Amino acid sequence: MNLIIDVGNTRIKIAVFKKGKLIHSESITKENIVIKVVELINKFECRNAIISSVGNIKKTQISKLHAIINLIELTSETKIPFINKYSTPKTLGMDRVALVSAAVKLYSNKNVLVIDAGTCITYDYINMNSCYFGGAISPGIQMRYKSLNKFTKNLPLLEPKYTNQLIGQSTDSCIHLGVVKGTINEIDSFINQYRKKNKDLTVVLTGGDTKLLANRLKNSIFANPIFLLEGLNAILTYNL
Amino acid sequence: MNLIIDVGNTRIKIAVFKKGKLIHSESITKENIVIKVVELINKFECRNAIISSVGNIKKTQISKLHAIINLIELTSETKIPFINKYSTPKTLGMDRVALVSAAVKLYSNKNVLVIDAGTCITYDYINMNSCYFGGAISPGIQMRYKSLNKFTKNLPLLEPKYTNQLIGQSTDSCIHLGVVKGTINEIDSFINQYRKKNKDLTVVLTGGDTKLLANRLKNSIFANPIFLLEGLNAILTYNL
Repeated sequence: MNLIIDVGNTRIKIAVFKKGKLIHSESITKENIVIKVVELINKFECRNAIISSVGNIKKTQISKLHAIINLIELTSETKIPFINKYSTPKTLGMDRVALVSAAVKLYSNKNVLVIDAGTCITYDYINMNSCYFGGAISPGIQMRYKSLNKFTKNLPLLEPKYTNQLIGQSTDSCIHLGVVKGTINEIDSFINQYRKKNKDLTVVLTGGDTKLLANRLKNSIFANPIFLLEGLNAILTYNL
Repeated sequence: MNLIIDVGNTRIKIAVFKKGKLIHSESITKENIVIKVVELINKFECRNAIISSVGNIKKTQISKLHAIINLIELTSETKIPFINKYSTPKTLGMDRVALVSAAVKLYSNKNVLVIDAGTCITYDYINMNSCYFGGAISPGIQMRYKSLNKFTKNLPLLEPKYTNQLIGQSTDSCIHLGVVKGTINEIDSFINQYRKKNKDLTVVLTGGDTKLLANRLKNSIFANPIFLLEGLNAILTYNL
């Protein structure tokens, strides 16, 4: 039984894998991370754990976790199951390392583009020889809504919503269109550009906005909301 | 001689038009707006002025301007040279009112899509009968860079830069690609979608990022960095 802790920019996910299969997952808060880990260790008899963090987490909390379970902290020093051709591996986000590991594990011998639509939208390309090259980073959907409100005087903060029209006839619908359809346009075009260079390309969509986006993209993709967790489990297994 | 004052989200532009032609323009700061107006009135013998504001400007400054020149403040009550089908005209930004007015003035009898790539990217559609319908609003290029830095823990704040590659191999190039190429993808796709519905469509690109984007779009467009100023001049002339 493996315990997976994923500290993202906006939320923390904790999950349990049994022989490569997810059997439990939940979102937790920063404060109760240690309590939750203890609870899950007892409930599922977990022996090994991995923690990945792109957000803030206290060192004292990490120390407490080390005391209660065999814990791997994912860093740029951790052994990874792919060849990293990224030119600045030390600034490669641990979330992206996990996504690439999942691609290599679940789609070995395939050219894969992983799109993670979360706080940011990350694009990551891995070829059939498990070589990771890099990709792109753009603002996520929530971030686009937030920035329109934060960095202008008059625009409201809205909840994400898809509208199936081309011309927004109110300020709200203009924003929904510009953000959600704008993001869909961005993603579909990136996929098309990758497909032009790689006819045989597998595209995986993951992250918090998977549901909002998956059926609206013109390209066919595999939607997998737990891809990052699967990647962390792959790295943990690789290091045992 | 018409004096034009455009108070945007990030900067103030002041300009002078003589019979529909721009003969002077400069960027100024909030503080010296009254001094600059006095200077230009004297230098160019301006009789009439218009001020449009989507940003913050003090009422006392507006009063001072009223005392020295015949001034129209562009509001949702101002007479405009097009038919407004926007369902919430009171929340329609004055910048967009100006852009639509320019489209109607410079491309009458054409279907026009105006794309203003500034603080925000606004899309506005006007048909050949001078009917304005609306469009979309998404974050501008600078705003995308700023939000990636502001709303995450680890991403740096970068200066906008176009990179002619598909796969970013460092964090910086991933961000440049995600923001600049991502924006180009978004804009080109929106243009394609509008073109599908209107075979005879004129596309105008304006705003601070015109130079960065114009030659990189796949679609052919008219780049016009002073389109908003031309629109304000059109509204002023229409109201004299």
